[in-house]
Amino acid sequence: MARPITFLSDYGYEDEFAGVCRAVIAAIAPQATVIDLTHGITRHAIGQGATVLANALPYAPAGVHLAVVDPGVGSPRRALAVRVASEDRVLVGPDNGLLWPAIERLGGAVEGVDVSLSRFRLEPISATFHGRDVFAPVAARLALGTPLSEAGEEVAADSFTTLEASEPVIYEDRVVAHVVSVDRFGNAVLDLADRDLTQTGLTLGNQVRVETGGRLHDAVFTLTFADVRPGELILYVDSHRSLALAVNRASAADRLRLGPGDEVVLRPSR
Amino acid sequence: MARPITFLSDYGYEDEFAGVCRAVIAAIAPQATVIDLTHGITRHAIGQGATVLANALPYAPAGVHLAVVDPGVGSPRRALAVRVASEDRVLVGPDNGLLWPAIERLGGAVEGVDVSLSRFRLEPISATFHGRDVFAPVAARLALGTPLSEAGEEVAADSFTTLEASEPVIYEDRVVAHVVSVDRFGNAVLDLADRDLTQTGLTLGNQVRVETGGRLHDAVFTLTFADVRPGELILYVDSHRSLALAVNRASAADRLRLGPGDEVVLRPSR
Amino acid sequence: MARPITFLSDYGYEDEFAGVCRAVIAAIAPQATVIDLTHGITRHAIGQGATVLANALPYAPAGVHLAVVDPGVGSPRRALAVRVASEDRVLVGPDNGLLWPAIERLGGAVEGVDVSLSRFRLEPISATFHGRDVFAPVAARLALGTPLSEAGEEVAADSFTTLEASEPVIYEDRVVAHVVSVDRFGNAVLDLADRDLTQTGLTLGNQVRVETGGRLHDAVFTLTFADVRPGELILYVDSHRSLALAVNRASAADRLRLGPGDEVVLRPSR
Repeated sequence: MARPITFLSDYGYEDEFAGVCRAVIAAIAPQATVIDLTHGITRHAIGQGATVLANALPYAPAGVHLAVVDPGVGSPRRALAVRVASEDRVLVGPDNGLLWPAIERLGGAVEGVDVSLSRFRLEPISATFHGRDVFAPVAARLALGTPLSEAGEEVAADSFTTLEASEPVIYEDRVVAHVVSVDRFGNAVLDLADRDLTQTGLTLGNQVRVETGGRLHDAVFTLTFADVRPGELILYVDSHRSLALAVNRASAADRLRLGPGDEVVLRPSR
Repeated sequence: MARPITFLSDYGYEDEFAGVCRAVIAAIAPQATVIDLTHGITRHAIGQGATVLANALPYAPAGVHLAVVDPGVGSPRRALAVRVASEDRVLVGPDNGLLWPAIERLGGAVEGVDVSLSRFRLEPISATFHGRDVFAPVAARLALGTPLSEAGEEVAADSFTTLEASEPVIYEDRVVAHVVSVDRFGNAVLDLADRDLTQTGLTLGNQVRVETGGRLHDAVFTLTFADVRPGELILYVDSHRSLALAVNRASAADRLRLGPGDEVVLRPSR
Repeated sequence: MARPITFLSDYGYEDEFAGVCRAVIAAIAPQATVIDLTHGITRHAIGQGATVLANALPYAPAGVHLAVVDPGVGSPRRALAVRVASEDRVLVGPDNGLLWPAIERLGGAVEGVDVSLSRFRLEPISATFHGRDVFAPVAARLALGTPLSEAGEEVAADSFTTLEASEPVIYEDRVVAHVVSVDRFGNAVLDLADRDLTQTGLTLGNQVRVETGGRLHDAVFTLTFADVRPGELILYVDSHRSLALAVNRASAADRLRLGPGDEVVLRPSR
């Protein structure tokens, strides 16, 4: 028996990087199921990868959760394996903040090791592909049930690199939020949670004035795309309970020229 | 034991949508093999998804066939699980025509249920991601052998949304066809089947005059790309017995500026 | 029990081609693990596919190694299954050079058969999709343990199509190399191995003058990206011990306008 392994990275699909990591896992732990979450994280986008990972893992079976977005590969940044409180899940990846929101969401770290010099890494180790040479083989061994303590040197659970997330500013008459990410449908997710809206006057079913890039747009705060006609702009609560902007059957990011980090001001229309 | 699950969608590869659905399946039915057909269907292209699904399923092992191209997510459109005559296969997806050609090709519906309110769906359900919250968990349960009748409310097998496909018009001296899809090699598939050619004068080995966008092109009706020199245009019968246009070692879609829906007139050259 | 199957192709992710091959494999050998190396090889790029395959397979578990980059599909080119010396691995693909570097790296061919007319192929066979109709079903049967001799007609092991690779030219004061490939991070891999550098004066830690497209650039020969500031150019030994050019946190290919085949002249700066 082996635990399942989820795998997220910015390796993309044009190259063999993710495939070679899967090959390494299959060679060490042939019975482990590998679940690719996505390898389409924007290259080096640690924040995007961290958000996607934290949102996805609660839907995945407990196991080993491999994540590699690693612009500092080969630098002295640590390589981590972290056991969290929730279901003894183990996260494996670089210590650059990528794992942080998921660790927090999964009950916090119980045990952590630095696997940079793990005896399970492949030799000769490359300077630039630790996914293949460090993270994948360590994840595979952990999936087989090897204790964390055998995979590397213990590190303090309060020493992990954290991540600064952008935050909305909530005023009496408006909310200043920021675009966190844009998906393939052109929907723009904001750094604004469902629960932040309580005192804002932004309520389901009502009109919203959306200001971005010096332009004003009218939207409806509604449940789903199909609540408006094709081409109309909506504000809605997305599947992770974040507020997001969408255009029914088209792209809100194109229409409003939105990208990650852009500021969006929301006001009740009355 | 669990039945295999095939999975097709327009979720793309940049986001985690398909990966999270796979994670949900792995959590419910860890022993089920998931076969990704493609997640590269053009967003919201129900017709394209329907054609690809119907063409692919005869090659897949009998099991549960999950398909999600769902621009109407959150609207009152039904969510279906349909058992067909062929090998007790079960199709799961939105009731918007996406499943229709596959149902027809696989012997027709024997039993259907609306799973919108299925007791197997995840709670709290989102308004915009029914792949994760409805379709994937229902597909996973059905793969484990749960009877269809426990997954939702029975619906009449003749009440499913059908799909209007474009059709060629066959004249005495010419055929007016339409582009159904363009693949990554730039090959353009037409809404014209092998068997439609009987009385057209278009015959293997002969020259064809191709008219599209007000321009004329010379092609050869041949078996395969390598039958002509690089750069030459051919008409051929593709792997699903549809007529298609290709340029050996290049892109017919680029050369002839073809996209889905475009009209193409074919005439025997002599 | 079945052997694992690795799968590499230029089928891409927009279409169902790779997925349908996986479906065919799952129908014949449901217990075989399929490891997708990548389907993102540039279309028809036999040389790129061959290099990626040869570099990836040593990391994969021994089994059946399916590879399809096949611009000559339907022509009289042979379809091969080849057993190599290393661990009885079996390679399956077109006889166009794609398999050649991997065969050499894995100890050379021990046995080869032409599977073009294999009794395991699907009927009716298409003229344009031998991945589905020939290579995938043959690979699946071989994964189940069927002897090679039952899969096709024996061919001489010295009759396989080989591949001309570009080679660097090493002068007393400079090295003339060529770009083999560019990855998604914009790193440009050269046809220059680690061991070619012995007498060149190019040594780790030193400055390098890079000339390409009539322009000069300064680089540092260093271990990894993080050894320089963001935006600086490096020469480094990549994870397959080939020399490569990178820009820390950006794209060397964009900066230097490099693509496959381009000439790059390297000189020690002092």
